[in-house]
Amino acid sequence: MNGGAKLIGVGVGPGDPELLTLKAVRALNEADVVVHFAKAGNASNARTIVASHLKSCVTELALTYPVTTEVPKSAPSYCSKLGTFYDDAARAVAAHLDAGRTVAVLCEGDPLFYGSYMHLQVRLGARYPTDVIAGVTGMSGCWSAVGTPMVQGDDVFTVLPGTLPESELARRLADADAAVVMKLGRHLPKVRRALACAGQLDRAIYVERGTMADAVVQPLAAKADDDAPYFAVVLVPGWKGRP
Amino acid sequence: MNGGAKLIGVGVGPGDPELLTLKAVRALNEADVVVHFAKAGNASNARTIVASHLKSCVTELALTYPVTTEVPKSAPSYCSKLGTFYDDAARAVAAHLDAGRTVAVLCEGDPLFYGSYMHLQVRLGARYPTDVIAGVTGMSGCWSAVGTPMVQGDDVFTVLPGTLPESELARRLADADAAVVMKLGRHLPKVRRALACAGQLDRAIYVERGTMADAVVQPLAAKADDDAPYFAVVLVPGWKGRP
Repeated sequence: MNGGAKLIGVGVGPGDPELLTLKAVRALNEADVVVHFAKAGNASNARTIVASHLKSCVTELALTYPVTTEVPKSAPSYCSKLGTFYDDAARAVAAHLDAGRTVAVLCEGDPLFYGSYMHLQVRLGARYPTDVIAGVTGMSGCWSAVGTPMVQGDDVFTVLPGTLPESELARRLADADAAVVMKLGRHLPKVRRALACAGQLDRAIYVERGTMADAVVQPLAAKADDDAPYFAVVLVPGWKGRP
Repeated sequence: MNGGAKLIGVGVGPGDPELLTLKAVRALNEADVVVHFAKAGNASNARTIVASHLKSCVTELALTYPVTTEVPKSAPSYCSKLGTFYDDAARAVAAHLDAGRTVAVLCEGDPLFYGSYMHLQVRLGARYPTDVIAGVTGMSGCWSAVGTPMVQGDDVFTVLPGTLPESELARRLADADAAVVMKLGRHLPKVRRALACAGQLDRAIYVERGTMADAVVQPLAAKADDDAPYFAVVLVPGWKGRP
């Protein structure tokens, strides 16, 4: 009942199970093995999103990150630990592919946009057929929940990780018509200062769990600095010179 | 059988009808009126994408742009013509909302990301309930078709319109880890020069109709300058320092 050995990166969207695509649902129906990544001690968010579409007979392979934010990315051990983890993960996935199975790798948002699936594809893509099913990104989910026009016409749009140095954030924010700052967490106070420096604090919107029932949406100026989760984002809408 | 007067921006994704979300399909089932935008003389691409989901009894409202690329955007008549067009379109949509109808506005890609729906929402959002259904963007569709890892980790990602001046394109391309250049058309030779100036021509990928059966994908270096359609894009993948 499957199409043979194939590695498929399946974008499952930003959180709302209804934002799955028809193609993702079909891939889940056809897969022999479903792979999901999670932080140690947590359930996979991507698995939660697709739970109602998983066949009872499907094989699941759960991959647990060895580190996430506990080790600074500048530390050599961060890269080597993650590299070993992805090598091991690729070997586990390859064993299923060698047995002729279709393997669907769940990815929150879009697989090739800041997703872990890419680490499997670069390790296995030369040896097995692969396919990627685009998904709705987390940022699209967030600005749709807010309902704010984000970019239009000839706007320049930039995605910035909150991990950048403050001066670089400020410089890049001042140079974009519209922006999204991701990976907030403990970087929120720095991101706030950079937005103020760039003259954009007043239009910045803070969003947590954008497409979920318990979403938090508020002007960043009204949000306290002390408790932003890692996956919260700040939206800086563009929309200038509109007809 | 509907939820009353409501304006819904429905993202229909990048072109492959299977990249519709479950939520978009439900919205099409519940809508009394389906609105689509098109260039004069062309069918609406968004309508083509959803054709198999349109109810036979649904009312359709086709809105035809008065200008697209014939008039330079710097010309005052461009903004005034488009402004009048969106004002008229909003009045036509408001008449349906005043009659208690649910109106779904089809948007290629994502409604709030360079979409025409925004022009209706800003005119009507204060008077009627609105909802936005996020969609898979055209750029996600393109890089998924190519299968190239696009951005990861702390990459800075930028979306640039090909309409920008050459020196500004070159400066911004040199300053981003990954980029997408949209709206190519007659700007392709300029975009190519800017990429070369930024040292990124070798990794630039040209994509036309990314998620369609007749997609064109090739290294930009191998693509002639003379015949790029307006909606072709150039991808400049990031993916540095990966574990």
